Amino acid sequence: MSTAPAQRVRDVDSALRARAARVVPGGMHGHLDAAFLPPEFPQFFAHGEGCRIWDVDGNEYVDLMCSWGPILLGYRHPEVERAVADQLRVADVLNGPTDLMVELAETFVDQVPHADWAMFCKNGTDATTLGVVVARAAAGKRKVLIARGSYHGIASWSTRPDAPGTTPEDHANTVYFEYNDPASVEAAVDQAGAGDVAAIVVTPIRHDIRRDLEPPTLEFAQGLRAICDRIGAALVLDDIRCGLRLDAGGSWEQLGVRPDLSAWSKTIANGHPLAVLLGSEAWRDAADSVFATGSFWMAGAPMAGALATLRLLRESDGIETMRRAGERLQEGLRDQASSHGLEVTVSGPPQLPFLSFADDPEQQRAGVWAGECAKNGVYLHPYHNWFLSSAHDEASIERALAGTDEAFRAVRDRDGAD
Amino acid sequence: MSTAPAQRVRDVDSALRARAARVVPGGMHGHLDAAFLPPEFPQFFAHGEGCRIWDVDGNEYVDLMCSWGPILLGYRHPEVERAVADQLRVADVLNGPTDLMVELAETFVDQVPHADWAMFCKNGTDATTLGVVVARAAAGKRKVLIARGSYHGIASWSTRPDAPGTTPEDHANTVYFEYNDPASVEAAVDQAGAGDVAAIVVTPIRHDIRRDLEPPTLEFAQGLRAICDRIGAALVLDDIRCGLRLDAGGSWEQLGVRPDLSAWSKTIANGHPLAVLLGSEAWRDAADSVFATGSFWMAGAPMAGALATLRLLRESDGIETMRRAGERLQEGLRDQASSHGLEVTVSGPPQLPFLSFADDPEQQRAGVWAGECAKNGVYLHPYHNWFLSSAHDEASIERALAGTDEAFRAVRDRDGAD
Repeated sequence: MSTAPAQRVRDVDSALRARAARVVPGGMHGHLDAAFLPPEFPQFFAHGEGCRIWDVDGNEYVDLMCSWGPILLGYRHPEVERAVADQLRVADVLNGPTDLMVELAETFVDQVPHADWAMFCKNGTDATTLGVVVARAAAGKRKVLIARGSYHGIASWSTRPDAPGTTPEDHANTVYFEYNDPASVEAAVDQAGAGDVAAIVVTPIRHDIRRDLEPPTLEFAQGLRAICDRIGAALVLDDIRCGLRLDAGGSWEQLGVRPDLSAWSKTIANGHPLAVLLGSEAWRDAADSVFATGSFWMAGAPMAGALATLRLLRESDGIETMRRAGERLQEGLRDQASSHGLEVTVSGPPQLPFLSFADDPEQQRAGVWAGECAKNGVYLHPYHNWFLSSAHDEASIERALAGTDEAFRAVRDRDGAD
Repeated sequence: MSTAPAQRVRDVDSALRARAARVVPGGMHGHLDAAFLPPEFPQFFAHGEGCRIWDVDGNEYVDLMCSWGPILLGYRHPEVERAVADQLRVADVLNGPTDLMVELAETFVDQVPHADWAMFCKNGTDATTLGVVVARAAAGKRKVLIARGSYHGIASWSTRPDAPGTTPEDHANTVYFEYNDPASVEAAVDQAGAGDVAAIVVTPIRHDIRRDLEPPTLEFAQGLRAICDRIGAALVLDDIRCGLRLDAGGSWEQLGVRPDLSAWSKTIANGHPLAVLLGSEAWRDAADSVFATGSFWMAGAPMAGALATLRLLRESDGIETMRRAGERLQEGLRDQASSHGLEVTVSGPPQLPFLSFADDPEQQRAGVWAGECAKNGVYLHPYHNWFLSSAHDEASIERALAGTDEAFRAVRDRDGAD
């Protein structure tokens, strides 16, 4: 295949950035802000289809970010879109839920072994925060333990203590441990006071920004379960980022460690806005005691999309498709780097791959490489894990690898081999 | 016209409630929980069209709740739905925003006089909380002043101090004043410490649950503006519930009092999920400094719906349509109650009407009346304000009034006249 032109058109994107700078603080905010990315990346997008996206200037990319996770089955999956469109023709928001809420709750309870109930919401932050609130409501305890550097959304309990706009009181009940370090969890429990720990919130893998991805050790996962059982705290699995990519029953199923509460969003409706907190029986009354609500939480269309997404994932063996595509991608990247004499670390489960360069603590080389990838029609991220979908077929992975190979060559030509 | 049958079928609703009780804590949560309502109310809905809704058993209602606000132009407004469907056929979530984000931000900045910038999010709670975070980020102050009894969403800073699952630290920086009581605001500033007040957050009217609605006095609104100017705090107008129903430029435009920040959601995409924080120039840098994001915040489809909604509201004089319909409804209710010898208070701006009975502190009589209304095909609420849409034409108001008249008669037959 031919590679994309080295200099891509950016006219529409540039014009939109100039307009946005006037009416949006900084021109953009949050994780989609292209200011965090090398200059080769566009800010504005026009279209997605399968595993491909087009920016507003018509440049096409094999997308390895899946909208930062939500796209599980590929953009505009026809059956998901049909389910959503059909529901929109009947009803979306109403004065109460539709029957789809019940059907979707039943589906999650059937599919996720630890779950006996479901509470739907909208943002990932809604679900993780609801988990904390439910855990606190259960016994009036206050403290929440999280791993230092883990991202659990933008609610005040989980933001960085030095984040602008937060107060010391916001973080007064948050106590930190180190991921994969059981001793640090024990120390955090002691610091919090064992009798005042409401919850330990943890991601299924360590997927902190600007780090190689790291699987949990069995000792760590089992240790968290044992500690929570011992002190009567809720083990809350934040499955927002991994959910449905590693195991449809929850991302720690293969470890045999089941949480009390699990928070899901992103993928569950293949990009349509929905989140859910799942819980086990012992936490039902606490969940029933809290007031959690939002204007759009019970809307029917995203729930129709979720039912289609869950069914399609089951029927298509989509997780295995993603895994195979990711393995091919990870192997290809390792081979390419080696052939160019570049030292890299390819990490993460295949469905959430990542690549970093050796001796690149500020991700400068990663930025050059990612920018070259963008120029060559491959959209990936220099310092945040990537995401695959079940629409990433062999041809698209090969196409992505053609672009990454050019990008490695450009890095080597610029910096020399390691 | 004929009134609806006195006993409506509830078979499907009952079966769904039984199923929901197994897989959702309490069978339902939040403001859409029918457990808060008399037994005549259904829990599950199937369809909405214009100003009418149908429950899952096929019972039809003139809807005076508009999904608790979001439905501004009527359910399934064809032009809004077409805009959303057209956008869904191209793209919804992507790796960045579409051009619609810029166009929508420009539209809000043009339409809302105090606004120089816009930041989009998803829930009303997202927008009010982002307002607080931006205000705090501006100068590192901590305290937030809110009116006792006002609802600003479910984030910890605004929930009731005794709400299950919250901690004392959650409310440590929240200080209360009384709505429409300038002296209480001064006292709250003193209590907080004038130098530590980041924001005063206020709703455009007093629309607390279980109370008659109350407009702000000019003295109160101007007083808040003056205090904020004096102490360098942000005046945050929580326009989630009133926004676009009273004035397209913001609900205090007619008072001539402009906030620094305003939070909007519910109506802005006629039921599609979207929220926005608008701000004036002085708060732009603070807004740019905070990290605020969500997986679905930049999705294109709700923004397409919002652009259509804002255009249609402008072109149709929809606010005046709502106002006239509400006036007819309020007058009719007053006349009916009087003719039945029942003492009621009809309050609220016509677009957000409400009715309470005299000597009914627990809303028992209101519950009986609202239940009779539901039986007679009128969906309204016994202790929360209602909402009109521009789809409430004269015929639908007359139809609603036929149902409310039957309900007044039933109350009088049951309890006797006042």
